Amino acid sequence: MSQKFKKSPLAPKSFPNMPNIKGIKLAAIHSGIRYKNKLDLSLITMPNKTNVACVCTKSSTPAAPVIWCKKIKNIGKARALIVNSGNANAHTGRKGLQTVKDTVEQVAKNLSCKRNEVYVCSTGVIGEFLNTSKIISSIPKLIQQDASSWKEVAESICTTDTFIKGSKANCFIDDKNYKIVGIAKGSGMIFPKMGTMLAFIFTDLPLPSNILDKLLQDSVEKSFNSITVDGDTSTSDTCLLFSLSSKSLSSPIKFIGDQRVKLFKKSLDKVLQDLAQQIVCDGEGASKFITVKVNSVKTYKIAKEIALSVANSSLVKTAIAGEDPNWGRIVMAIGKEGSSVVQNKISISINKVKITHKGALVNNYKEEIVAKKMKSKNIEIDINIGTGKESATIWTCDLTKEYIKINADYRS
Amino acid sequence: MSQKFKKSPLAPKSFPNMPNIKGIKLAAIHSGIRYKNKLDLSLITMPNKTNVACVCTKSSTPAAPVIWCKKIKNIGKARALIVNSGNANAHTGRKGLQTVKDTVEQVAKNLSCKRNEVYVCSTGVIGEFLNTSKIISSIPKLIQQDASSWKEVAESICTTDTFIKGSKANCFIDDKNYKIVGIAKGSGMIFPKMGTMLAFIFTDLPLPSNILDKLLQDSVEKSFNSITVDGDTSTSDTCLLFSLSSKSLSSPIKFIGDQRVKLFKKSLDKVLQDLAQQIVCDGEGASKFITVKVNSVKTYKIAKEIALSVANSSLVKTAIAGEDPNWGRIVMAIGKEGSSVVQNKISISINKVKITHKGALVNNYKEEIVAKKMKSKNIEIDINIGTGKESATIWTCDLTKEYIKINADYRS
Repeated sequence: MSQKFKKSPLAPKSFPNMPNIKGIKLAAIHSGIRYKNKLDLSLITMPNKTNVACVCTKSSTPAAPVIWCKKIKNIGKARALIVNSGNANAHTGRKGLQTVKDTVEQVAKNLSCKRNEVYVCSTGVIGEFLNTSKIISSIPKLIQQDASSWKEVAESICTTDTFIKGSKANCFIDDKNYKIVGIAKGSGMIFPKMGTMLAFIFTDLPLPSNILDKLLQDSVEKSFNSITVDGDTSTSDTCLLFSLSSKSLSSPIKFIGDQRVKLFKKSLDKVLQDLAQQIVCDGEGASKFITVKVNSVKTYKIAKEIALSVANSSLVKTAIAGEDPNWGRIVMAIGKEGSSVVQNKISISINKVKITHKGALVNNYKEEIVAKKMKSKNIEIDINIGTGKESATIWTCDLTKEYIKINADYRS
Repeated sequence: MSQKFKKSPLAPKSFPNMPNIKGIKLAAIHSGIRYKNKLDLSLITMPNKTNVACVCTKSSTPAAPVIWCKKIKNIGKARALIVNSGNANAHTGRKGLQTVKDTVEQVAKNLSCKRNEVYVCSTGVIGEFLNTSKIISSIPKLIQQDASSWKEVAESICTTDTFIKGSKANCFIDDKNYKIVGIAKGSGMIFPKMGTMLAFIFTDLPLPSNILDKLLQDSVEKSFNSITVDGDTSTSDTCLLFSLSSKSLSSPIKFIGDQRVKLFKKSLDKVLQDLAQQIVCDGEGASKFITVKVNSVKTYKIAKEIALSVANSSLVKTAIAGEDPNWGRIVMAIGKEGSSVVQNKISISINKVKITHKGALVNNYKEEIVAKKMKSKNIEIDINIGTGKESATIWTCDLTKEYIKINADYRS
């Protein structure tokens, strides 16, 4: 967590009270990779037979740990996750890959597990070599120490974040209560051409890894892949979903069509969307939480493209920061992307006040009403394209002087 | 020209001494559309047989004048160009189109020319209705008044610009000196998925409109379509190239393969690149002029995509504003776009200092040397992808607190 910047005005009141999941051991320490006096290294160990699904960044310059995760993810088994903040181990060539290899070997040896059951994530500055010996020498400490809390682990993965991010949900299946627990980090370099930022989700509902995989991909699309802070895609984005098999089911889930999967999916979506929205709320310099809804479009893909064009527009985001109802910039952003748009069918509302209808201002438009609505911390832009039935929603934040200050004067 | 913001530190020392072109009459006045005490309306009249080529924004929500220009441009003849600043007449529906129609009719009547020889451009705030009667009543004044200068006309088309933009070149053909004169405006909402911002080029070399068209399209691609300020595409971008036939040629130019066309093209490119670079130098809040060169790529298209990804990255642009050699952000931006990139072939230099080679830091990298180089007003990022022979160059500026100030607190 950032020690330099004050807490986002959009932060939730507190970190949720997160339950333990039987079989998971949490450990977080300060190893001194980069930051002073901040937890920066975590090890999460899980029992045998834990299944895992993994979605990683689509960046073509992925970090060394991402290359490793992509390599092992099809096996679908996990015993440990080791994460450091302060250094992304990205664009570090062979040396960086060797660091990951050494780390994995050390963890596997200490836990007596297979190397391809050890997941590694790093987040922080790109391009600097990661100090391997600091990590290696910390592994026995991590294994020996008393259990840390979810809050401590969530803190240890933060970089420029101004608050710690966690979310939880229950789902009742076969008269039992199964848990979902998730933590995430992210504040800048957030844009959905990706897996996600770092996000780790755990459940005690036993699910095979092929079903986990499908569920995670679907759920990521409408959560982490539907947010943007600055349109920049991280080299380290990784989202992992772990399913422990310690709690039994009346009969195992084998098919994605199983009604119990639907119940689980609903709770999973809730946790992922909550975490994704928390990342937006911690968007670097953010003062407003913005929802861009694009309705009545031919396909979901086009709807999302238009919503992203609005949500990534510096001019729209600065207008919102300035509480200026300069809706012409929304028109510009729609036109920039939407090759299939028919201008005189577009309607736009801000916080439920209709501004344009059929390609021009509504009659009796009163700018002062919209200006007043824009003083809210939550801004909802509703765009009706009027050419189909599909829709998409993107969450983002405004662009403020604070963003420039953070990124021009500071290296995460 | 902006009366609120101080002149860009990247502005040229002075407006060039621009020659008259025989047959062109310039007139610029203050009509009071939006600004106080600023020229805001211009009429440029040209003799019979003037040919014209036009490239307009690819936005699907174009302004009313753009819709008009697109309608008439295939005819290829021009007698007049009328331009106002302060109001873009964009997303104004039928009412906006009627304003253009009335304006064109009034100009055509006063000049006794055809309506499809009258070009109209508007620039300024999007979505507000343009006061038709102010324009109409100004037309006789524009026609009657004494000749204005290029500088006055160039001033009259400015909005948030902090300096006036002009460029000129000569080309010697058949032992005669032909002139090219161009003016442009643009500062924000600049991104090359477009025709351009407003740019008007005039030459006394007689060229048929089909050749003009081809030349303009080619030339725009590597000038106005190779710049970005904020990644936002204007609804009003228009570039017009006029060729007067008042000065004779030994024999008419009929084919694009004519050697004389090549000579002209060279001078035309020079003027367009100069104007495009001036727009970048006036990028809202700019303190650095950035050149992004991407070399050794399979195709020009991929090279340009990678260069744009770097040039549009908020994180790269803020790092440069902060004079921070945080080159990891360049790696991130390459990875975000370049699906065909092989990470361990990439080399990156900043202002000729090599930073990475084959996917990791060079040996003996000294950050302080790059940090010192970054104090320059001109930053050149050289990226070698190492997979082909094509290259592309994009010009942009940094992203500063001043950009946020201009766009959060002010409506152009």
